[in-house]
Amino acid sequence: MKIGMVGLGLIGGSMALDLRQRGFAESIMGTDSNPEHVRLAKQAGIIQEEGGLPDLAAACDLIILATPVDVAPAILLSLLELVSDKTIILDVGSTKEHICSAVESHPRRKQFVACHPIAGTENTGPSAAHHTLFDNKVNIICNAADSDARAVELAEKLFATLQMETVHMDARAHDRHLAFVSHLSHITSFALGLTVLEIEKDEKSIFNLAGSGFASTVRLAKSSPAMWAPIFRQNAGHVSEALGAYIEQLLHFKEAIDAGMATETYDMITKANQVSRILSGIELKNSQKPAISPAPEDGEAKIAPMAG
Amino acid sequence: MKIGMVGLGLIGGSMALDLRQRGFAESIMGTDSNPEHVRLAKQAGIIQEEGGLPDLAAACDLIILATPVDVAPAILLSLLELVSDKTIILDVGSTKEHICSAVESHPRRKQFVACHPIAGTENTGPSAAHHTLFDNKVNIICNAADSDARAVELAEKLFATLQMETVHMDARAHDRHLAFVSHLSHITSFALGLTVLEIEKDEKSIFNLAGSGFASTVRLAKSSPAMWAPIFRQNAGHVSEALGAYIEQLLHFKEAIDAGMATETYDMITKANQVSRILSGIELKNSQKPAISPAPEDGEAKIAPMAG
Repeated sequence: MKIGMVGLGLIGGSMALDLRQRGFAESIMGTDSNPEHVRLAKQAGIIQEEGGLPDLAAACDLIILATPVDVAPAILLSLLELVSDKTIILDVGSTKEHICSAVESHPRRKQFVACHPIAGTENTGPSAAHHTLFDNKVNIICNAADSDARAVELAEKLFATLQMETVHMDARAHDRHLAFVSHLSHITSFALGLTVLEIEKDEKSIFNLAGSGFASTVRLAKSSPAMWAPIFRQNAGHVSEALGAYIEQLLHFKEAIDAGMATETYDMITKANQVSRILSGIELKNSQKPAISPAPEDGEAKIAPMAG
Repeated sequence: MKIGMVGLGLIGGSMALDLRQRGFAESIMGTDSNPEHVRLAKQAGIIQEEGGLPDLAAACDLIILATPVDVAPAILLSLLELVSDKTIILDVGSTKEHICSAVESHPRRKQFVACHPIAGTENTGPSAAHHTLFDNKVNIICNAADSDARAVELAEKLFATLQMETVHMDARAHDRHLAFVSHLSHITSFALGLTVLEIEKDEKSIFNLAGSGFASTVRLAKSSPAMWAPIFRQNAGHVSEALGAYIEQLLHFKEAIDAGMATETYDMITKANQVSRILSGIELKNSQKPAISPAPEDGEAKIAPMAG
């Protein structure tokens, strides 16, 4: 089938690469608000054709919105006016309640499927797009009952092609969970980056003294403001709750440290160590699912390398 | 030479492995407060002999303290009473002001060198010890003027064998820098782990929803309380300052998010993005130094694999 891709960054670009390579899409028609992204995406073989929203609506069986979450609802509403009754649209944004509300009462709501493939890196743009980004990861479909069963089925098939397990969830529950296990992580990194940049004016000494621990905790601070500022805005209630709970934990640490209560910090660290069970669970989950591509049309199954 | 190792965990164990393999030490005599660590260390070839402090003092040319920082000063003072005038002692702890003050007026102060090889992982104990942990990393020597020149020279040779670049620094400056670029990172992870463990009682949904970003920011929460509680206690002033500055940044984020000011969060994220320059600097620094082992006694230089 022909797929339309709106937004040609890391996520849209990586989806396009594997959907075409694995035979799900014959060709990809794409658009991006940044003309340089379109140029790079063409050059890298991410898209085969460029086209505006009306072109995508006229030519594509399925359109994927892979834009920042602030512009996705308006693009979705425009597209729903342009497409035929057969076209399916899905989004892949990191917040789900806002976009679901935006189309809640639209007569073509059933043609839309709210999705969130949980994968990414701290790098952005079509030059960061790469194969196997989604292999062995989880995709969430929200409020599936509001979508046509055929549309949900097609979305699930698409994410299965990307080697993802799809789970279903209510949009509000999705946004609250994601605030804690993803959005908060990004703020901890942004704030750490700002703290160190402000205090350590002498970058040479950061290079000398910062170890792999600092690099690991601050890595996400490279993430794109165009992507993340809208996520924090749309998920403000849950992100604020998560951030409030996190600040409480830090204040608890600070009080214990200021009071010289090493037993108290010892106990907090011991409790935090339980996260190793979760980390092992995440690793185990990944290792249990070998990245075997579905048989493409030539009939040969291929073992894909693990995502980085 | 014969080296004494007090503390047979990740750091002491990994140092012992490479110092012997690379010909700096003929054999290692070790001790640990945990008898199981001694057993494992013997079994893994980390130490060749077990011995108490008097044995180490009598038999070794150089003794390395690789214990948690709360017990290192007392062990150092005991050892200084036991050793000959020729024996050199160095520590490898993550705080330097406290141990330097403890021996400041000791008549044998000059036999001690305060060191901090900046390397590690979130794993602990002799079973976590491995080769090449220190390759291409930085070692700090503090207050070198208080040590005998010959002792400093030997310490530098030792860390050069571990493929480390040594830089010199005042103990107080070391502790302040480390509070920002290492100790703070650990607290951000411990607190993130505690926050998510407290809210997300359903671990299955964490496995499903947490991506590589969460894993990266929370990885350090696995770190040992026996190592970290004493570091926070000894470096309380600087850690509290760093934590206070960090909480300020988070409150700034929370205010902007609560007020729906996406431009404000956009600008903060853009500023935080500058950390990518620092991360590139850290990577560049590592890549500029190929891990070539010094020629061992058989005259062949070997390329060691990069540390993980």
